[in-house]
Amino acid sequence: MNSRRIFLQKASASAVAISIPYLPSFSKPLSENEEKSSQSDKVLRVAIMGLGSYGTRVAKAMEDSNRAKLVGLISGTPSKVEAWKEKYSIPDKNCYNYDNFDAIKDNPDIDAVYVITPNALHKEQAIRVAQAGKHVICEKPMAINAAEAKEMVEACDKAGVKLLIGYRMHFEANTLKVVNMRKTGEFGTIKFFQGLSGFMIGDPTQWRLNPTLSGGGAMMDIGIYSINGARYMTGEEPIWVTAQEVKTDPVKFKEGIDETITFQMGFPSGVIASCLSTYSMNNLDKFFLNGTKGFAEMQPSTGYGPIKGRTNQGPLDEPHIMHQTVQMDQMAGIIFDGVEPEIPVDGREGLKDMVIIDAIFKAVKTGEKVLLV
Amino acid sequence: MNSRRIFLQKASASAVAISIPYLPSFSKPLSENEEKSSQSDKVLRVAIMGLGSYGTRVAKAMEDSNRAKLVGLISGTPSKVEAWKEKYSIPDKNCYNYDNFDAIKDNPDIDAVYVITPNALHKEQAIRVAQAGKHVICEKPMAINAAEAKEMVEACDKAGVKLLIGYRMHFEANTLKVVNMRKTGEFGTIKFFQGLSGFMIGDPTQWRLNPTLSGGGAMMDIGIYSINGARYMTGEEPIWVTAQEVKTDPVKFKEGIDETITFQMGFPSGVIASCLSTYSMNNLDKFFLNGTKGFAEMQPSTGYGPIKGRTNQGPLDEPHIMHQTVQMDQMAGIIFDGVEPEIPVDGREGLKDMVIIDAIFKAVKTGEKVLLV
Repeated sequence: MNSRRIFLQKASASAVAISIPYLPSFSKPLSENEEKSSQSDKVLRVAIMGLGSYGTRVAKAMEDSNRAKLVGLISGTPSKVEAWKEKYSIPDKNCYNYDNFDAIKDNPDIDAVYVITPNALHKEQAIRVAQAGKHVICEKPMAINAAEAKEMVEACDKAGVKLLIGYRMHFEANTLKVVNMRKTGEFGTIKFFQGLSGFMIGDPTQWRLNPTLSGGGAMMDIGIYSINGARYMTGEEPIWVTAQEVKTDPVKFKEGIDETITFQMGFPSGVIASCLSTYSMNNLDKFFLNGTKGFAEMQPSTGYGPIKGRTNQGPLDEPHIMHQTVQMDQMAGIIFDGVEPEIPVDGREGLKDMVIIDAIFKAVKTGEKVLLV
Repeated sequence: MNSRRIFLQKASASAVAISIPYLPSFSKPLSENEEKSSQSDKVLRVAIMGLGSYGTRVAKAMEDSNRAKLVGLISGTPSKVEAWKEKYSIPDKNCYNYDNFDAIKDNPDIDAVYVITPNALHKEQAIRVAQAGKHVICEKPMAINAAEAKEMVEACDKAGVKLLIGYRMHFEANTLKVVNMRKTGEFGTIKFFQGLSGFMIGDPTQWRLNPTLSGGGAMMDIGIYSINGARYMTGEEPIWVTAQEVKTDPVKFKEGIDETITFQMGFPSGVIASCLSTYSMNNLDKFFLNGTKGFAEMQPSTGYGPIKGRTNQGPLDEPHIMHQTVQMDQMAGIIFDGVEPEIPVDGREGLKDMVIIDAIFKAVKTGEKVLLV
């Protein structure tokens, strides 16, 4: 573990009150006893399921991780497996396909599987991984609806394995700085959150535009950042949702694939969130949190970074570390050392977002305000 | 008229195609013949009705106007009339109160009355001014609902006088630059507009928080900027509206006074607008226009200026001139020379905003999407 990382981790355990210079609190120990165990250096041995572009990014990120290592592969494409095996010196015995990966149960060299496949496949795959006795890390959205997400949570509980969702922003230093400022009241009473999440999607043949594989369009893929962001930025859970859909290209964005949705969420304190999810515009990766005493603006707010922004107190300039590297380091701590992150990344956290996505789709369909309580 | 102002006005008549350096096109002539008449220097002799804080600002702005001059006063407060009379050397014969101002009909020294009173009074006052044969300039919102606004338009038509609404942003140079860039396609196809309009309102006893005088809360006062901005920034008229209300302080914000409303508008092309109107937060004066090829961000977007912002092509840095000075100069041109502004400021323009405000209040009440066509 490099010295800066050690410094940040140790600092996080004891220096919550120190704010100048800001020390990102990546995670908090459950208790003093558990703090001791958080000093563990035990390495999380990970198999990646799904060797697409995001899988490639996660693999690269693990090259720099001190606590997570790529040791296994699960893929339906033999040529990819060959290339990755060579690149990462992975033995044959740690390579699986989608038919035989249940046998991972008998492989003592793999601790966890990171599921990075199309959304509609997550549930079945995650449950099979859990039943094989391995921890599950699952990319977001964790499933295509709340019912599936709940099944996954229950299956992992039953199997006694952890279920973690790939919420990399929950470990990002500028994000944590803003969340901490909000917690310590530096913005006053929070009144408003705005999240704009979108990009202009390319290739119309990709799985993200196939409703059978994606379970939805922009909302599943990118709108979820605004949903999730509204929750961690405000620190509240929404009690109602309204939503409006616009579709300008019904050929590219078929039935079941949302192109653009604006949605609003009401929170118990009276906070209101106004968000946009879209596959048809760029320049959209913005968060804005507004309180009675101050504000935070982030742009980009959830991209791969560096995250930039400012608060009423000045620029957000925490140093950038590749998000997936930090995530994997921290997830090792969660799995092995019982560390509880500042912002949860477990299956129940993922389920909350899926409940909201279901409600947004219902609000679009009915035109009505959907209550979440 | 100072040389810079003359330069800008002359430039606007002939240099539409020139974009570097950008020449704000404050107004466009109706035809070549009318262009000639737009060179008129005839001064608009204005009486201000309502000597409150905004009236004070308009009076001050007219000190620098080359084409509008404060010559009369209408007020219910004799002490204010005395102070203003002295400050602006206004003769007794040009001073009126709310009972006797119909006699302005017989005063050949006054061309127009600028109505700057509480919203609920505009209709009756504007109609009386029109019936006295004087041009009406009315602060926004022009009335408290569309039915009233329509009556005003009809009364001014019938009386053969102009009805202009105090849309000072329609003459603001950075705003016009963005509108011009949108018109010439520099942002590509417009997809999204976001307007955040709000401030934390102070004194709970002010007329703006009295529904009988204001006809509504933040929406009437400040939300109208996002409504109006959505229209001139996108260049389209909305076809539907949805809206959600949140009230955190029902003591300060009584029945009939909206504190915070989020609202959305759909436009024929598929553009969607997402807006916020609020009396309970600061840091809210932002516009964001997003197209397939570029964007414009303005913050502040509708305050008294300087207006600041940027587009995908760089910063918006047109020089600031006091908005109300430019407005009054331009309104003289509209009234005397038949100049047609880039963005309308007539009663029908004001009526369009009132129709949308009615629809927003209806959407809040019913929870349903309100169609505007």
